[in-house]
Amino acid sequence: MITPTPQPPYFAVIFTSKRTEGDHGYSEMAERMEALAKQQPGFLGIESARDAELGITVSYFKDEASIRAWKQNVDHAEAQRLGRERWYAAYDVRVTKVERAYSFEKK
Amino acid sequence: MITPTPQPPYFAVIFTSKRTEGDHGYSEMAERMEALAKQQPGFLGIESARDAELGITVSYFKDEASIRAWKQNVDHAEAQRLGRERWYAAYDVRVTKVERAYSFEKK
Repeated sequence: MITPTPQPPYFAVIFTSKRTEGDHGYSEMAERMEALAKQQPGFLGIESARDAELGITVSYFKDEASIRAWKQNVDHAEAQRLGRERWYAAYDVRVTKVERAYSFEKK
Repeated sequence: MITPTPQPPYFAVIFTSKRTEGDHGYSEMAERMEALAKQQPGFLGIESARDAELGITVSYFKDEASIRAWKQNVDHAEAQRLGRERWYAAYDVRVTKVERAYSFEKK
């Protein structure tokens, strides 16, 4: 579930969120959006973790143009609207440029 | 638990990890390291989530010099060593520059 990514530079969108109570169609939409993102040119991968306090999803993209295109995707824009209406009590979106990266894997 | 951060630019270190089985002193060290990070000049805050698959911790810093100083902090370096030895099966560290950010909060 740690996403293999290319040599930097590339881009990461950090999405941290607090959910509202209940599902209200969230899980189904989350799956649809992940499948849709994978079709987005320039999309490199996604990492996600959620516990009782907070959810963090990091999506990786080749460049800023891919991030803009994904933000404006019609189905994704509708999911964002529903997110504000139903699923999220609060969220932060941070668009970042990955400058360097290193990996560890136990032998 | 969503960390208030200043207007960009600032820096975010994305740490994604898969844990080994068991605690082995991890929880205590994680608490100590968070307390220590808060004393690090230039540290802006931390967000963390872990589920069965993956843990994601994002630490925010004012500038790259603060990130370097934190990486080299003696106690933190020892925690990193123990992390590779005991707590993590795999991890990725990505040092990023936050270029823009926006927030949503339900009224």
